[in-house]
Amino acid sequence: MAKHTVRFLPNDITVDVDRGTTLLEAASSAGIELKSTCGGDGSCGRCTVLIKDGLVESLGQGNLSKRSKDQGLSLACKSAVAGNTTVVVPKDSILQSHQILLDEKNLLSEVSIDALRNYKKDSFIKRYYLTLEEPTLTENAPDLARLMAELRKNGVNNAHIALENVKNLASVLRDGNWRVTVTTSDLHDFISIISIEAGHVTKPLYGFAIDIGTTTVVVNLVEIETGQIIDSQGTYNKQARYGDDVITRIVHASDYDIGLSELQQAVVSTVNELANKLVVKNQLVPEDIKAAIVAGNTTMTQLFLGINPKYIRLEPYISTIAQVPLVKGSELGLVMHPEGIIYNFAAVASYVGGDIVSGVLATNMAKEESIVLFIDIGTNGEMVLGNQDWLVTCACSAGPAFEGGGITHGTRAMTGAIERVFIDSQSYEVKFKTIGSGKPIGICGSGLIDGLAKLRNAGIIDRSGKFNQSVQTTRLRRTEEDWEFVLAWAHESELEKDIVLTESDIKNIIRAKGAIYSAIRTMLKMMELDGFAIDKIVIAGGFGNYLNIGDSIQIGLLPDLPIEKYIFLGNSSVKGSRIALLSKEALLEAEEIGRKMTYLELSVGNTFMDEFVSALFLPHTDLSQFPSVTQ
Amino acid sequence: MAKHTVRFLPNDITVDVDRGTTLLEAASSAGIELKSTCGGDGSCGRCTVLIKDGLVESLGQGNLSKRSKDQGLSLACKSAVAGNTTVVVPKDSILQSHQILLDEKNLLSEVSIDALRNYKKDSFIKRYYLTLEEPTLTENAPDLARLMAELRKNGVNNAHIALENVKNLASVLRDGNWRVTVTTSDLHDFISIISIEAGHVTKPLYGFAIDIGTTTVVVNLVEIETGQIIDSQGTYNKQARYGDDVITRIVHASDYDIGLSELQQAVVSTVNELANKLVVKNQLVPEDIKAAIVAGNTTMTQLFLGINPKYIRLEPYISTIAQVPLVKGSELGLVMHPEGIIYNFAAVASYVGGDIVSGVLATNMAKEESIVLFIDIGTNGEMVLGNQDWLVTCACSAGPAFEGGGITHGTRAMTGAIERVFIDSQSYEVKFKTIGSGKPIGICGSGLIDGLAKLRNAGIIDRSGKFNQSVQTTRLRRTEEDWEFVLAWAHESELEKDIVLTESDIKNIIRAKGAIYSAIRTMLKMMELDGFAIDKIVIAGGFGNYLNIGDSIQIGLLPDLPIEKYIFLGNSSVKGSRIALLSKEALLEAEEIGRKMTYLELSVGNTFMDEFVSALFLPHTDLSQFPSVTQ
Repeated sequence: MAKHTVRFLPNDITVDVDRGTTLLEAASSAGIELKSTCGGDGSCGRCTVLIKDGLVESLGQGNLSKRSKDQGLSLACKSAVAGNTTVVVPKDSILQSHQILLDEKNLLSEVSIDALRNYKKDSFIKRYYLTLEEPTLTENAPDLARLMAELRKNGVNNAHIALENVKNLASVLRDGNWRVTVTTSDLHDFISIISIEAGHVTKPLYGFAIDIGTTTVVVNLVEIETGQIIDSQGTYNKQARYGDDVITRIVHASDYDIGLSELQQAVVSTVNELANKLVVKNQLVPEDIKAAIVAGNTTMTQLFLGINPKYIRLEPYISTIAQVPLVKGSELGLVMHPEGIIYNFAAVASYVGGDIVSGVLATNMAKEESIVLFIDIGTNGEMVLGNQDWLVTCACSAGPAFEGGGITHGTRAMTGAIERVFIDSQSYEVKFKTIGSGKPIGICGSGLIDGLAKLRNAGIIDRSGKFNQSVQTTRLRRTEEDWEFVLAWAHESELEKDIVLTESDIKNIIRAKGAIYSAIRTMLKMMELDGFAIDKIVIAGGFGNYLNIGDSIQIGLLPDLPIEKYIFLGNSSVKGSRIALLSKEALLEAEEIGRKMTYLELSVGNTFMDEFVSALFLPHTDLSQFPSVTQ
Repeated sequence: MAKHTVRFLPNDITVDVDRGTTLLEAASSAGIELKSTCGGDGSCGRCTVLIKDGLVESLGQGNLSKRSKDQGLSLACKSAVAGNTTVVVPKDSILQSHQILLDEKNLLSEVSIDALRNYKKDSFIKRYYLTLEEPTLTENAPDLARLMAELRKNGVNNAHIALENVKNLASVLRDGNWRVTVTTSDLHDFISIISIEAGHVTKPLYGFAIDIGTTTVVVNLVEIETGQIIDSQGTYNKQARYGDDVITRIVHASDYDIGLSELQQAVVSTVNELANKLVVKNQLVPEDIKAAIVAGNTTMTQLFLGINPKYIRLEPYISTIAQVPLVKGSELGLVMHPEGIIYNFAAVASYVGGDIVSGVLATNMAKEESIVLFIDIGTNGEMVLGNQDWLVTCACSAGPAFEGGGITHGTRAMTGAIERVFIDSQSYEVKFKTIGSGKPIGICGSGLIDGLAKLRNAGIIDRSGKFNQSVQTTRLRRTEEDWEFVLAWAHESELEKDIVLTESDIKNIIRAKGAIYSAIRTMLKMMELDGFAIDKIVIAGGFGNYLNIGDSIQIGLLPDLPIEKYIFLGNSSVKGSRIALLSKEALLEAEEIGRKMTYLELSVGNTFMDEFVSALFLPHTDLSQFPSVTQ
């Protein structure tokens, strides 16, 4: 196979690749991760590059925007190397440094709910320091029997032991001069021995708390006995290259022979990359990690475990698992002790996963008298309503708008994303604030919500989201395709092009907010409550953290309640994982929470659709639900 | 690497091998299995061949007998191919067709004890035919929960399921149109799901009953639900190449880095060769085999599982395991269902293994009032004395004499082995009978015992085993090395050389029989019984089957009891495995038997040594113990 050299500017990195390699693949092997959420089939149109010179074979144009065409850009995924080539990578094609909720308590807006205080700090992972009697000709019990007898003296009965831990038991006992450290897992009436170490080990006992999101993955390194968070790492889920949302990933897993294994490998390698960083940075070895608690949505959990998710997306939407069998580190090849226990939170339904159960644990709502609404907004909106007596949950597809998908200049919440917008209602002049305060590269979810609220307040759009064409400003203009409003001029922008919101973008945002709000309404109706009965609203998830509550109420995304009733919980999923790692009582409570929740399937009956249609206005057709929104 | 052709005569088989390959390896790749019990290091001196022409590099002479030298033979393991070569393989260098106790009930001398009749025929392996409710939008429990609920309806609670069985559960349920066949294992309060098959499977439920002996391995294919033995296969344990007895194998496992894994692979591949034959011959697939019950001595069990056996041979002789954790087919790579259960009988002590526990189960002695002595004679003699109230066990090293080891013309019980000897007390002329009635190739254990008894009866040897040099016959002669007696002349022999018994051979046999008898005496003394208190003697094992009781009493190997008190049980170890496979109650009884047995360590105290010294005569120093032996 002929090799060609590809040179990437401005960083001047060169790689040699086989003829036929796409520029997307070449960039990746050069360590440059381009934005690509469609898996390289040309549909997301994000991996734009400028081919400066050299020989490239076009594999088709893909979904390249007119603007990109005008700038002479090409999609990297649709350009195959046919000779030595030089490529310029625009800044906004590069996947930016991560804005992932590590739950490092460094987010000012985040309120910590110490749910752990309600539970006994006593993990299902335990360590025993044993000193065995040395054998003699007359006291000649076998090594394993000797160990088990000593464990029984410590109250550990019927512990299961895997063959791997027996193979070198003889040497371990003798190396430690009959003193050993035994780590066990005790869950669901099943005690298993994770490790047997020679001598009395003083190194702390470690575990991972893991959140596997569709978009991002976060791993906390936790000291199990003290409860201390030692370190945390987060990154994007490598599955993103196979599709943005759970549905496209399920399709990939179902439609391709190796699709499922590709997706499993992608997420396992994402977790392992983080796990490895944590282990190396903290001078540990994988065998030091004795357990991992994993929270993910139902599809993520199935893909992580290699379980075919095909039927999750086919009516009647049946997942394979809710309660997940305990899995060993070695079964998934995770960077941890091979006999270490991987516990996955049980799902409630196909679209309400273990991440929500974990989140509910972290909110403490299942122990409160007052009525709490817990919302995790991402590509899907999942929510739980209830208190200590009852819990209702549902999931709605908000679409990718809040994560920047399907929006002309939408972007994830990353450096350069517009997150706040100010519009003068007289001059229609615009000011904005970006994450990191640099030049804008696009608009993220919180910026879209704020922008929509401000456009409406300034009278630039009407209640249905249509532009008021009588508004006199050069920012409002008609292109070949649509009406649009310029938020940032080309000279202000990192992209050196105008950043706009089109009428079609606005429709997408309204559909997204309508879906969330009508799902909340449907749960309330089921419980015969009105929105004002809610005592507390807990917002979780990456998007939630950057959300402006006032704006959200203004556009009718969230119920019209006083701002002090709102709490940001940050990464509730990894928080709940940590609580379950540190307290067996809490872990079992989470299982009880999962069983207790009533799942509301929104596609059954007409309530949701009726509510959705009413919610496709700003803020709503029924203004009595939004008394604070002045119109 | 240069290739050379090796031609093997008389069968005229040629193979091409790399330069430097030994003739032993070349023969093996030509499908000719030569006798070799030392692992190819030249010490056993059995793999003799005649190099007719060609180029061979000598790697040393090894332990080549003077006779072989005289005949111009070389050891195949010490001859490396250096050019095209023609080799003649003498018949007695070839490993003969197997004489392995398959327990196919085709041995006339064997009495069957139906121990199974005492137990409920209800295996720990069970099959359930389930029909699940088809899911709907409102009845939307996940697949696994749906399956578990149906299992609970069938009385199966808290069944553990491995991830592998979950991965394709969705398809299995739908392929079978919601009808499935679930096979479970239920043992030690632990229920696990072995397999979930689409539809209602009508194929029988199969399991293996396995006996792993130091010398031979036997696998029975059994229908679990009917109890029928479908087929049986046996062969030599491939570990033999690393040593004849457990001690040399432990040394090999301990002294070489890869020794343990070589030994594990050897025995696993032996079992797999048999398992594969059974599966193929009976038109099954490995997944049809849902369980395997394995009986082996302590060292064999540890090697089978890959557990370091080092400390078994070092005082205080501690094994790693007695009770063995349940292991899955995939953990050992056995030809069976990967999630199938492998149950190993628990050992009693380092030198009384699960094979003896299995044997005791097969004898039914733990359910009898009368006192039974159970003896399994091989390289080691293991024995159990007792009844329903008490059981004592011990092991003694009989050495390899009874299997032909350490005896000038000793051989295993194979075609051509002398098994009966007749000596005229006047003329000292000899007649003999061989296995298969052909020309003799050597003497096997039963022939040695018979020969010794006849030499003594004819007055050719005295009570201490020394030749009476005044006996006038050309058969008694002195060589450079020793006195010897010719049993078969060269012209009568397949080897075309004289087959003899030397004085040193006789000493070895006396030591072997003395060890067995004094072990029996030590147990009796411990229980303050004399030999005549024994009501029944059950003889097991390959050697036992060819044993002549009269001869054995004559030389003082076995207690002097009426012949009707003796029973041959054949391969008691595989019999017990079968019983445990078919009845959970019996399996648990075997565990109770193991716990109940008192192990007598013969090296503690002086009783055994005193008894041994007294037993180094024919039949014994204390003739009152052998009233039937006329002098």
